[in-house]
Amino acid sequence: IFKVDWDAADAEKGGYEHFMLKEIHEQPKALRDTLTSRLYDDKKEIVLDKIKLGKEELDKINRIYIVACGTAYHAGLIGKYSIEKYARIPVEADIASEFRYRNPIIDEKTLLILISQSGETADTLAAMRLAKQKGARVMAVTNVVGSSVSREADDVLYTWAGPEIAVASTKAYTTQLACMYMIALHLGMLKGTVNEEELTKIQESLKASPEMVEKVIKKESAIKEFAYDKFNVRDVFFLGRGSDYYASLEGSLKMKEISYIHSEAYPAGELKHGPIALIEEGTVVIALCTQTELLEKMMSNIKEVKARGAYVVALAKESDKAIEKEADKVFYIPDTQDDIAPIPTVVILQILAYYLSVARGCDVDKPRNLAKSVTVE
Amino acid sequence: IFKVDWDAADAEKGGYEHFMLKEIHEQPKALRDTLTSRLYDDKKEIVLDKIKLGKEELDKINRIYIVACGTAYHAGLIGKYSIEKYARIPVEADIASEFRYRNPIIDEKTLLILISQSGETADTLAAMRLAKQKGARVMAVTNVVGSSVSREADDVLYTWAGPEIAVASTKAYTTQLACMYMIALHLGMLKGTVNEEELTKIQESLKASPEMVEKVIKKESAIKEFAYDKFNVRDVFFLGRGSDYYASLEGSLKMKEISYIHSEAYPAGELKHGPIALIEEGTVVIALCTQTELLEKMMSNIKEVKARGAYVVALAKESDKAIEKEADKVFYIPDTQDDIAPIPTVVILQILAYYLSVARGCDVDKPRNLAKSVTVE
Repeated sequence: IFKVDWDAADAEKGGYEHFMLKEIHEQPKALRDTLTSRLYDDKKEIVLDKIKLGKEELDKINRIYIVACGTAYHAGLIGKYSIEKYARIPVEADIASEFRYRNPIIDEKTLLILISQSGETADTLAAMRLAKQKGARVMAVTNVVGSSVSREADDVLYTWAGPEIAVASTKAYTTQLACMYMIALHLGMLKGTVNEEELTKIQESLKASPEMVEKVIKKESAIKEFAYDKFNVRDVFFLGRGSDYYASLEGSLKMKEISYIHSEAYPAGELKHGPIALIEEGTVVIALCTQTELLEKMMSNIKEVKARGAYVVALAKESDKAIEKEADKVFYIPDTQDDIAPIPTVVILQILAYYLSVARGCDVDKPRNLAKSVTVE
Repeated sequence: IFKVDWDAADAEKGGYEHFMLKEIHEQPKALRDTLTSRLYDDKKEIVLDKIKLGKEELDKINRIYIVACGTAYHAGLIGKYSIEKYARIPVEADIASEFRYRNPIIDEKTLLILISQSGETADTLAAMRLAKQKGARVMAVTNVVGSSVSREADDVLYTWAGPEIAVASTKAYTTQLACMYMIALHLGMLKGTVNEEELTKIQESLKASPEMVEKVIKKESAIKEFAYDKFNVRDVFFLGRGSDYYASLEGSLKMKEISYIHSEAYPAGELKHGPIALIEEGTVVIALCTQTELLEKMMSNIKEVKARGAYVVALAKESDKAIEKEADKVFYIPDTQDDIAPIPTVVILQILAYYLSVARGCDVDKPRNLAKSVTVE
């Protein structure tokens, strides 16, 4: 008898050691699938297939909530930033389990945007039902066609990430970001608050994002080497400002989830209001420095933690070489429009968390205590 | 020659070993001073001396920002919750160093509430000037008469905490909370959104808060004993929902600041979306369970972390004895209206952080790397 040494899970990993690594590598394709049918080369337009919300409906909206859990909430924070910037409508990003229990101010002038990979997250579903009951319009960003969220929402925008198997979300997150940028631009165009120049610039950057991720993935072996060098670290602090702060929350969560390192993300301006007390000789600080306007502020935050002995890893745009004078180690992302920087930035942090997890001997795809979708409260 | 072995600092400590402990003990008086002249026994009214904002001005406001740094930001979160609950005006609490750099949506319909003990916090001042320039009305909550914030704001409400010397804020924070509750009720009364029954209940609880703090301070030796038992802990996780989450952020910051323990506060509903991966045998989890409606949810979160080996310390109202079945250790606060619970709750966490710091041999009043007021960016 001829025995085939093969199992279904291994085959699906397509040669990768773990689903997570496979899904990290699938991000250029996932981003292309999510973006291509919605951004056209020849016209200044974004076509969001299942979004029926038009100018008339939007003019009635005076307030947006973005509600989600975990990784999707981190995509929501970037959504808040982008919608406020491009559409100038006040947005609050909230955690579903907090939102639903605090009698939020909701009426028929409220738009609720939900983000859920599975479309079945229990707290997110409950938040949706609460908001609908109070008359709000609901827009969902989800990866699963036919999921509860997609069936019950008024408008749906799918992330075309494909099935995500690893518990720690990667390609779902980056495609959620792509969707949030497109929603922000779409609302901005409906409101007439985004000018053509801005629009062109961010559209170009969005279209280039799959390629940026490809470039970043090429740095895998350097990131791996760094992870194997520092795998024994116990505590990690992430620092960032603006979009970099939101990206650092996601980077920190990845590290917690799969490598069990106690990492924590802080808005860099808050450093002196407390957490700097924890910095001592050798503490690893990951400083995100991709936002041009905030670069100088970040440089001085790096100096502050370096003066207390921290080992600083910086992430910056490849033109910003000055960062090498301050940081101990730098990983670069391609030059890009600032708002889009979280996409390549987070991919570096995903790869870092992945190799830290492997080096520490953790179960990458099924971290202890965690489930893929939290469908019970 | 007769030499007196005496120095000014020791004398000012009034017999306490550290300023921080003295200031923790001064909280009943600080709260009384902050509340008494503003809450009257004989009438349903709150008199906020320097607040000129009346019904007419408030009716023009459609959006409130509460902007602050560090501990004051944590008071701001409870302010957001309370103002939305009692006055039903949308509020966003934001960190000053984030707010000022993200082109926030501000116009003459915006009310900006600033919180700063010193009234000189650099990022908070910059946020105020940005908002004023865009036409917003500015209300300040500060502890220092004549400070920059008090001079430049349109309305000022003083915390009568008295001078705070220890770097880690205690009485400034609890009196900031008292002010935020009074502002929320004042705005609610102007808007007509708070009914007399609610008003009476929360006013009674506020008036009782100095006495609640006295009761909690009587538990000092039990808290000290616990701190000396667990002083060697490396990582601590705080869990809470709603107001308990906001209070846990402050409890966690105290621990970071003075005992250099890597503590982190999480909304309990987010536990399963990541941080539960960090829970292992013996991990210390501090679960805040003072909110009646959320008690059952917290009980099941406690079960989840217990099942992974966590050692759970719960804080609960003294009637909620059922918690003893789930937690390894319970500290009680007096029964009170839920919204006010953060006042006595945080005092327990202050005392805990204080004795952990003493037991670990840290410099309580002047923790490494920190300054009392962050007057430079």
